[in-house]
Amino acid sequence: MKYPVWRQQLVRSLHLHRSKPEAKYFQAASVDENMLPRLRTMVFRDFLEGTHSFLAITDSRSEKVEHWKRSPETELHWYFAKSREQYRFRCKVGLVQLPQNNLADISGVLNMSEQSAKDCLLNTWERLSDSAKKSFSAPSPKSKLNTELPEDIREYGIERKGSSNDTNAPEATKDKLVVSDYFTLVVFEPYASDYLDLKTRPHTRQISNLNESHWQAQSVNP
Amino acid sequence: MKYPVWRQQLVRSLHLHRSKPEAKYFQAASVDENMLPRLRTMVFRDFLEGTHSFLAITDSRSEKVEHWKRSPETELHWYFAKSREQYRFRCKVGLVQLPQNNLADISGVLNMSEQSAKDCLLNTWERLSDSAKKSFSAPSPKSKLNTELPEDIREYGIERKGSSNDTNAPEATKDKLVVSDYFTLVVFEPYASDYLDLKTRPHTRQISNLNESHWQAQSVNP
Repeated sequence: MKYPVWRQQLVRSLHLHRSKPEAKYFQAASVDENMLPRLRTMVFRDFLEGTHSFLAITDSRSEKVEHWKRSPETELHWYFAKSREQYRFRCKVGLVQLPQNNLADISGVLNMSEQSAKDCLLNTWERLSDSAKKSFSAPSPKSKLNTELPEDIREYGIERKGSSNDTNAPEATKDKLVVSDYFTLVVFEPYASDYLDLKTRPHTRQISNLNESHWQAQSVNP
Repeated sequence: MKYPVWRQQLVRSLHLHRSKPEAKYFQAASVDENMLPRLRTMVFRDFLEGTHSFLAITDSRSEKVEHWKRSPETELHWYFAKSREQYRFRCKVGLVQLPQNNLADISGVLNMSEQSAKDCLLNTWERLSDSAKKSFSAPSPKSKLNTELPEDIREYGIERKGSSNDTNAPEATKDKLVVSDYFTLVVFEPYASDYLDLKTRPHTRQISNLNESHWQAQSVNP
């Protein structure tokens, strides 16, 4: 697979900042129910194999999931302090969850088979730390402190999924790897990029667009 | 003026990171003409005197100015790497420019007198470096490289504003301080904050809302 210019640059930026955990943090924007803009930090997990899509995870109870179900679009933002580079990516957003039995293409936006969505979700879960896995059994984000946990998520992992009377449970949830109902894989499929290099004088800026599976780059004024 | 909890925390975070230029960078979101979310880095210049509003500057030719004229709302995002703190602020957006003779409250959103808007714009311009001032005489952001500059902005500063036949020019533009037509002061007036501390276990999160000029804070689940 040939890398577009932006990905060659991004790979280099990530490598340059590999000692900084925050280099894997990017910001993702959404539009809320009142059509107001929102944004937050997310953690870059990897590229989806064989594609240029960015992978991240979230809790299905978070507000951004509602936003992206309504409008599956985002702009991502990445700033690298040492090399003074800003990246912006406009992307379609795909949300992949186990419980819905609607593994691939929940938002109807991704060019991704059901099997590869499922594999990717399970692989990503498997690579999480225990404490990250446990966060999906915690109370709902932004809920009041000291609220009781709902009965069915008190235990770490979703034990009931593996119960013998649940014949519809996907095979993979019956073994040790119990994936939280709330675990959501987020696939950001980019279609436009905007790169700004602030260490050059004058600053340099390059915009790219995906046209029928080809990325076309153009240098523009900063 | 009493500081709300979020500002006390932010002042401390800024102080802790005072050696890092990037600590003054935040991200600001907007909604574009297709109702899609957008975001970019901006530089925190200061608080507007006597208020909790954040000040930043931009070029009126940039896309975000169009977005905010249509929908004067944003969420700001700030991440401090050393202390592992994330701040999010939902704000009304005010755009202040000289040429329009519509100094205060261009978007009709700010509690700010015309005089204080004008003073703030001029003070902010005055404190810019020469190279920052010159960037407002450069070609339009995202325009093609090597395009001719429009006749009236070839010279640094907007000389024609000080010409003797322009009797309507504001007094302040007739002296040495020639403010670019494109220079735009952006005032972000916060009404809600969301603070997340990632170095605590479990993470701690506090949301605050402005209710009739009082900030009310509440601790919630992360």
